[in-house]
Amino acid sequence: MIPTGSQPSQARVGSLAVGAPEQSASATRITPGNALRPEDIALAAARGAAKPSQDVAEYALRLGDDGLILAQRLGHWISRAPELEEDVALGNIGLDQLGHARSFLTYAGSAWGKTEDDLAYFRREHEFRSAHLFEQPNGDFAVTIARQFVASHYQFELYRRLVHSTDETLAAIAAKAVKEVDYHRDHSVQWVLRLAGGTDESRRRMIAGLALIWPYVGELFVDDALTARLGDAAVVPSTLRADFDAVTGAVLAEAELDVPAVPPAVGGGREGRHSEHLGPLLAEMQVLAREFPGASW
Amino acid sequence: MIPTGSQPSQARVGSLAVGAPEQSASATRITPGNALRPEDIALAAARGAAKPSQDVAEYALRLGDDGLILAQRLGHWISRAPELEEDVALGNIGLDQLGHARSFLTYAGSAWGKTEDDLAYFRREHEFRSAHLFEQPNGDFAVTIARQFVASHYQFELYRRLVHSTDETLAAIAAKAVKEVDYHRDHSVQWVLRLAGGTDESRRRMIAGLALIWPYVGELFVDDALTARLGDAAVVPSTLRADFDAVTGAVLAEAELDVPAVPPAVGGGREGRHSEHLGPLLAEMQVLAREFPGASW
Repeated sequence: MIPTGSQPSQARVGSLAVGAPEQSASATRITPGNALRPEDIALAAARGAAKPSQDVAEYALRLGDDGLILAQRLGHWISRAPELEEDVALGNIGLDQLGHARSFLTYAGSAWGKTEDDLAYFRREHEFRSAHLFEQPNGDFAVTIARQFVASHYQFELYRRLVHSTDETLAAIAAKAVKEVDYHRDHSVQWVLRLAGGTDESRRRMIAGLALIWPYVGELFVDDALTARLGDAAVVPSTLRADFDAVTGAVLAEAELDVPAVPPAVGGGREGRHSEHLGPLLAEMQVLAREFPGASW
Repeated sequence: MIPTGSQPSQARVGSLAVGAPEQSASATRITPGNALRPEDIALAAARGAAKPSQDVAEYALRLGDDGLILAQRLGHWISRAPELEEDVALGNIGLDQLGHARSFLTYAGSAWGKTEDDLAYFRREHEFRSAHLFEQPNGDFAVTIARQFVASHYQFELYRRLVHSTDETLAAIAAKAVKEVDYHRDHSVQWVLRLAGGTDESRRRMIAGLALIWPYVGELFVDDALTARLGDAAVVPSTLRADFDAVTGAVLAEAELDVPAVPPAVGGGREGRHSEHLGPLLAEMQVLAREFPGASW
């Protein structure tokens, strides 16, 4: 976390930057440098930029919810990882995911006159569009790594195609996200290899973690009417599957692990049907904002 | 979180970097750029660099524990802040604190043949040397801001003097930390002003938060035999008080708030006497590492 760039009006340390008071009512500004910020998206919308269509907004909601829910899960590791270094790494991955979510949700919300906070804190469970993978509990460290291994390989394949979206905003968000997710991917790969090649106990846990998570892989690659209608603005999920299988399969082979032969779980997250795990996560996430709606903190 | 620098052997995104496998058995590397890393400190110790004296190590332990405990507290906000943007900001501040803690603890541990993880996960409550301020519960958002307001002003005054320490490692850690803490300070100031000048409810909470936290200010500035013995290697705590009072007083005056007139709490953190709040925090932080000691994750 070091200062970069040379913006005279914004002093920065790491990714935390404090905007000049006259520029914003907010106490903090996240400044991802040359990438599109949620604030830029909100500002463009306020200035009359073309709003996303209902379909594009719904699509952005799906991607944003995936990142939002995953970020909540990863945040818990900040006090519980097996190494301090790993505390920091998972914390950073969580914050990256939250950053992507903020951009996608801001863009989605601009179609409906809602802010990212409206969408994060004031929707009910059946209005969330995340896939079941992301709401799966942390479990032990190996389960978290298995979930991250699947999540980041899926997101990498998705975002590297979405940079070519005919929707410029989706393309810009993906262009920032793909670079970060590429490193999340490397991080998970190195842990899969390390756990699989470590002690008997760590290998046993890695195998168990992958078996627990793999039923949620299928849902990520299911096409539906929305992705069909969106055409070149989006990415057809099923087209990602071959590359996902090839890359993850090669890693598992290197780790001398089998691709888990487990039946797929029932999905439905993209239509708002969730597992029993999402409700408690949302309750914790939303309690403060709901306790004082519009409190102008 | 954007790539900076140009180190060919280490690809980077934000503060998460993945080291080349032959350089390290660890899956992740934190690369704070031109600043001293915990890994550098550990490596220097392994190569026979002069070890810190027992006094310097004990002093580093105090500073490291302050950051470690505060980081745990702040990590919980990742799923609970009143705004997504604030989730990210508090998460980043927590990760900064954890980064400082890792450096201080690595240096302290080098005197005793212990790693940062040994010190974080395998000490008992009475062996922690953090001041009581840092273990105070998050409370509502205003309490967290009050705690952060005190913590970051104290740390800023401390670190900006510690950069002149005759101990080169302490000076180098402080040189990195002071830049980050300066922005933590700005962040807390802007929130104090915003909450005090917001709604009746937010002002009421800010006043209550400061009243709850202020009893823990005194302990931060208490001198003892250790700081006396250390001389110019450390900073005498009482010498920070005047500047702390002047700067925080000016902010409170701008916010039209009184400096809380509350009696000081009983301290003792520097000698390992803690409040009832530290035990549960440590239990959560240490459970995984203790469940599988030496499991070579």
